[in-house]
Amino acid sequence: MERRRVGILGATGMVGQRLIQMLTNHPWFEIAWLAASDRSAGKRYDEACRWKLDTPLPPRIAAMTLMPNAPEGTPEGELPKIIIAALDAAVAYELEPRFAAAGCAVISNSSAFRMTTDVPLVIPEVNAEHLNLIERQTWRKESGGYIVTNPNCCAIGLVLALAPLHERFGIEKLFVSTMQAVSGAGYPGVASLDILGNVVPFIKNEEEKLQEECGKLLGTFAGDHIAFADLKLSAHCNRVAVEDGHTECVSVQFRKPATYEQILSAWAEFAPLRGIHEGHSLPSAPDQPVEYAEEIDRPQPRLDKMRGAGMTTTVGRLRPCTLFDWKFVVLSHNTIRGAAGAAVLNAEILAMLGKLDWKKWAAQHQAVPAGVA
Amino acid sequence: MERRRVGILGATGMVGQRLIQMLTNHPWFEIAWLAASDRSAGKRYDEACRWKLDTPLPPRIAAMTLMPNAPEGTPEGELPKIIIAALDAAVAYELEPRFAAAGCAVISNSSAFRMTTDVPLVIPEVNAEHLNLIERQTWRKESGGYIVTNPNCCAIGLVLALAPLHERFGIEKLFVSTMQAVSGAGYPGVASLDILGNVVPFIKNEEEKLQEECGKLLGTFAGDHIAFADLKLSAHCNRVAVEDGHTECVSVQFRKPATYEQILSAWAEFAPLRGIHEGHSLPSAPDQPVEYAEEIDRPQPRLDKMRGAGMTTTVGRLRPCTLFDWKFVVLSHNTIRGAAGAAVLNAEILAMLGKLDWKKWAAQHQAVPAGVA
Amino acid sequence: MERRRVGILGATGMVGQRLIQMLTNHPWFEIAWLAASDRSAGKRYDEACRWKLDTPLPPRIAAMTLMPNAPEGTPEGELPKIIIAALDAAVAYELEPRFAAAGCAVISNSSAFRMTTDVPLVIPEVNAEHLNLIERQTWRKESGGYIVTNPNCCAIGLVLALAPLHERFGIEKLFVSTMQAVSGAGYPGVASLDILGNVVPFIKNEEEKLQEECGKLLGTFAGDHIAFADLKLSAHCNRVAVEDGHTECVSVQFRKPATYEQILSAWAEFAPLRGIHEGHSLPSAPDQPVEYAEEIDRPQPRLDKMRGAGMTTTVGRLRPCTLFDWKFVVLSHNTIRGAAGAAVLNAEILAMLGKLDWKKWAAQHQAVPAGVA
Amino acid sequence: MERRRVGILGATGMVGQRLIQMLTNHPWFEIAWLAASDRSAGKRYDEACRWKLDTPLPPRIAAMTLMPNAPEGTPEGELPKIIIAALDAAVAYELEPRFAAAGCAVISNSSAFRMTTDVPLVIPEVNAEHLNLIERQTWRKESGGYIVTNPNCCAIGLVLALAPLHERFGIEKLFVSTMQAVSGAGYPGVASLDILGNVVPFIKNEEEKLQEECGKLLGTFAGDHIAFADLKLSAHCNRVAVEDGHTECVSVQFRKPATYEQILSAWAEFAPLRGIHEGHSLPSAPDQPVEYAEEIDRPQPRLDKMRGAGMTTTVGRLRPCTLFDWKFVVLSHNTIRGAAGAAVLNAEILAMLGKLDWKKWAAQHQAVPAGVA
Repeated sequence: MERRRVGILGATGMVGQRLIQMLTNHPWFEIAWLAASDRSAGKRYDEACRWKLDTPLPPRIAAMTLMPNAPEGTPEGELPKIIIAALDAAVAYELEPRFAAAGCAVISNSSAFRMTTDVPLVIPEVNAEHLNLIERQTWRKESGGYIVTNPNCCAIGLVLALAPLHERFGIEKLFVSTMQAVSGAGYPGVASLDILGNVVPFIKNEEEKLQEECGKLLGTFAGDHIAFADLKLSAHCNRVAVEDGHTECVSVQFRKPATYEQILSAWAEFAPLRGIHEGHSLPSAPDQPVEYAEEIDRPQPRLDKMRGAGMTTTVGRLRPCTLFDWKFVVLSHNTIRGAAGAAVLNAEILAMLGKLDWKKWAAQHQAVPAGVA
Repeated sequence: MERRRVGILGATGMVGQRLIQMLTNHPWFEIAWLAASDRSAGKRYDEACRWKLDTPLPPRIAAMTLMPNAPEGTPEGELPKIIIAALDAAVAYELEPRFAAAGCAVISNSSAFRMTTDVPLVIPEVNAEHLNLIERQTWRKESGGYIVTNPNCCAIGLVLALAPLHERFGIEKLFVSTMQAVSGAGYPGVASLDILGNVVPFIKNEEEKLQEECGKLLGTFAGDHIAFADLKLSAHCNRVAVEDGHTECVSVQFRKPATYEQILSAWAEFAPLRGIHEGHSLPSAPDQPVEYAEEIDRPQPRLDKMRGAGMTTTVGRLRPCTLFDWKFVVLSHNTIRGAAGAAVLNAEILAMLGKLDWKKWAAQHQAVPAGVA
Repeated sequence: MERRRVGILGATGMVGQRLIQMLTNHPWFEIAWLAASDRSAGKRYDEACRWKLDTPLPPRIAAMTLMPNAPEGTPEGELPKIIIAALDAAVAYELEPRFAAAGCAVISNSSAFRMTTDVPLVIPEVNAEHLNLIERQTWRKESGGYIVTNPNCCAIGLVLALAPLHERFGIEKLFVSTMQAVSGAGYPGVASLDILGNVVPFIKNEEEKLQEECGKLLGTFAGDHIAFADLKLSAHCNRVAVEDGHTECVSVQFRKPATYEQILSAWAEFAPLRGIHEGHSLPSAPDQPVEYAEEIDRPQPRLDKMRGAGMTTTVGRLRPCTLFDWKFVVLSHNTIRGAAGAAVLNAEILAMLGKLDWKKWAAQHQAVPAGVA
Repeated sequence: MERRRVGILGATGMVGQRLIQMLTNHPWFEIAWLAASDRSAGKRYDEACRWKLDTPLPPRIAAMTLMPNAPEGTPEGELPKIIIAALDAAVAYELEPRFAAAGCAVISNSSAFRMTTDVPLVIPEVNAEHLNLIERQTWRKESGGYIVTNPNCCAIGLVLALAPLHERFGIEKLFVSTMQAVSGAGYPGVASLDILGNVVPFIKNEEEKLQEECGKLLGTFAGDHIAFADLKLSAHCNRVAVEDGHTECVSVQFRKPATYEQILSAWAEFAPLRGIHEGHSLPSAPDQPVEYAEEIDRPQPRLDKMRGAGMTTTVGRLRPCTLFDWKFVVLSHNTIRGAAGAAVLNAEILAMLGKLDWKKWAAQHQAVPAGVA
């Protein structure tokens, strides 16, 4: 099978690097185009990028020339129709719509459009049906392009742990206290003087994002919008001296009674893809989206972050809560499952659902898709 | 003024070392006797101890000979009547009563007797009146000796931040999520392989201690027992890669309405010693027991743990909570305010209250105190 | 091909865990027997062991029962003839000879017999011919058993970097200053209070081991002994806050002139197995035993330790030395290449050389090998 | 006694903050003027600065307005005649001469002019006589102003340990391998992703600085220049996960024989100020410039960096070297003794020597000093 051409916006950052790592040798996608800020555009990738992963930078990528972060900078026909964007929110806000308008499927890791009414905020295992929202987007109607987003790095792990419980017991309210890895702040990101032997009990906008995104993610698709889940969440977000892996302490109150065994079953039986997608599988989806660690002192970032190649969320320490119903701990790899892997998984489910098939779109819209390459 | 002779049980451990650091040059007390486990007894202090503080081991202490951890091992008249005990709970459970029976004031940092009905659990700024409980102890009646305890290292910082609020607004319930320093586990304590680049979301018995001790600390002295405060607490306790300083994220619900300004005032006006003790001061008490840090990302262990020479608790990030009334962050030095300093402060208030004056006791009890030295 | 049965001594320690990780799914070997200290013997592996690796403990291993650390404790015919030993030196000194006497090939990671005259100290890429020494061992003559050792974790990375240079230019003398990971001290090993925000400029016996082992490793097989290489080494060994990966700064003086390009060529052309073994390959041998990192600030433990699945040594920063000829930096994964992988590679080369073929030995010695299983 | 007015260039950086910490309550100096880059000039100090020390920012300093980093920006008579400069080298290169030309004593922590022929590079305990060089400076002749520098943070600790040995035994050559704290790179400086669980074996220009500065520091004042010490040094510089405190491993060869006892004596007898300055003392000079730590595993940054209030250099592990004569370990606080404290100490000795007395200069030069304030 021919692999689809993919472009990466923000290719030299930490999430951009993880995207390259995950898309190298991907069965469905091929990295065809890399873009970076003006400062880096025009340079070879390996000249512009300080590669910070512990697998080697693939030589083919190293030799690629970085394009400007704009659809206009690339010759007709060379711009890939699939763009995975790993940009800062302010930059994303300006650039992503231009790629969507140019007919590209923009799969964004940024917060810029997550809460926009007609933009889906998706974790494939949780709320793939939200992807139908893209058909409401003006870009989609005009050029075939659209924007799909994945959640904040903390929200992903948390919602993967919550979704199977919400489905069975209904989540009414919850407390979350996070201990987040420094890689979540990008590179150079957190100064070493701020985190060695220290905790920083503040991450800008993080508590707000966590609170608002959970309601949308656990909401239901209502034709032209998402009906948010009726739950209340209070978050405390902290930065700790961990390289990768966000740990979250959760106290949750359900609408229906739930026993210890029922909760473990809900997690164990949470399937990679459900409903209409059952039976299919996605290359980057873990066999087990949520795993329970039996040991008394788990999950831990160092030991558990790479479960399911970094795509599995680990839960542990399920125990009664004095104030709410149950307490537990959630751990998730923040730059794999929480960022690059989340975007790749969104690209995969879009492919599976035919949303990357422009001829199909053209037929449905009786239109000619923009610059198919 | 002649300084009172003090003995230290568990003198070679991390808390024992802090006790030595804080009692060296103390205006009221003099270290007269050091005891350690059988393995170390008989050795010079500097041979038995791996000194882990960044101030030098005082030469006089270095040259002292370690006694066995038992009152019987010391010649009549040489055993100090004031014993500060920094022992593991299991050892404390067996040993502390023997010292109390021998007529000593045992000021204990261990959890062994904290929840015992007639044993005071005290933070002088918070509940000094609980010290009256010692008169109910059988040891006290028979020999003049007694046991007084200080709380768990996490409970101290938390309760210092809660007490001024409880007094004014009444605390109904609260969530606490901690990020605790490795020094809290003693030496060698936490293995480096467990904490470098990692979080351990479990500390044995810690959540239970925090939950039960807060009710007693904020309770009221009712003649022969403590009437516990009617509050509910749910705790999540975590170990992080920090040397010293416990950080705690708190969401609290009050019984009465409280504004932002009222809360800040409550903390700012929280006096070192109140009620009958007003006007007095204790050598180790900080001028300001609770300080509010205005910066958006504070308190932080590295920057704030040494406020008030390590005896001040710093609070910060006061903001509304989605679920309860208010959220904030608490930071406290776990081996100074949370352990050694807590015990020293208890010794100081006992001195101020005349509870270290054995002749007074003898007169009141028409008895001869045991082996006054 | 049937896989050979292997036993592991010290199976629950850090190196034991790495051995299990590396031997699971090994094409030539199968873990058939696990032993641990008396305290653990008789328990299931997963009950006795705190698994500290970030890949899952294989279920088959988890369910295995730990045997006592002695050849006598295992029924006739069940004791594997290949024993990989990950024991502390004092224990190894007592136990390893008993397994050799019982007819086992003991492949040891301990320092106990490394410097013994008739015991080979081997890195397959460097000095495989030293393995002939085993035929001089009394155990070998009597039972077919023998002891083979791998070097200290620091010596392995260093000697891999030195060997290609020694071959071409002759090493006269060198300075080495190490920054060693905490995993090298096992578990619990280094206390977190000793290493967070700290450096410990002392590791017991490490400088001595590094100095003496290099001479033997770079020496030549002289029939009945090793003629040590005539080089002088001065080592400074330090512990730093790194989980895995030893970094070493080296200044070296050669006997012959060497240019920058010649040194890089020597490293690049250093083949996995040379001489009589050329053309063969070992399953765990890296394609490139020594890789040069071009970037100015490399190698680094976090980024380079996993090259070649943790079996490649990375060198970098080759530059002239003011005092000697050249300076460079060496990095090697201390528990893979520096311990478990070193032992597995020794097992592999022994297999390739026919030294694990007991029938061959029996024919040569006209003897019946002890309890072949 | 009236305190002399002092200004600080680069007041908001890490070294600037340490200068403020050390000069607050200084008996001889008073902070009268603070300057920062254009971005910060005009702001209140506490608005422009992220205070990163664990002692509180003094309220008087917090409220001061930052001036531009130039002598011209300050009204006549308000510019202090003593300027302590904590600037990056490139900025220092441009700015420091302008302050010297304006008649200021510029006491610089930067590398810009350290190796300039007529600029003294001084550690008061080591080579105070080099200060005579300032009389050769053109600025001095014209306006009374001059530039004095202190060494690189690594060179200071090293040379303090070497000077007493050089004096007695003559240093011929040495190897130095450093493990340097992140605070040496300023704030934000080293990214946390580069140093958590890692070592970076490269610090730009550091090895070169260390090599060249030692020769000048240990050189002798020869009237109009410094005759460099005839020693050869090879340095390996590394960054490690330590907040404060540079550790250095040293192997040294002497010109004359030196016994273990003689070396310890040389360090123990190394007086704070010698020669013509004997009998005087400086407020920031430690009683003991070099202390030997007897314990086998010392010095360590966490435990020893604050000896002598951060101004004492600790040495340890003196032992024979296989290649040179002796090996030992040096530890020094890099932002106190290695930067801010070094500059303050230079200011103090200049005051003691009358070099801050402009009337004296005017009398000698029959000139009117520029804008004395």
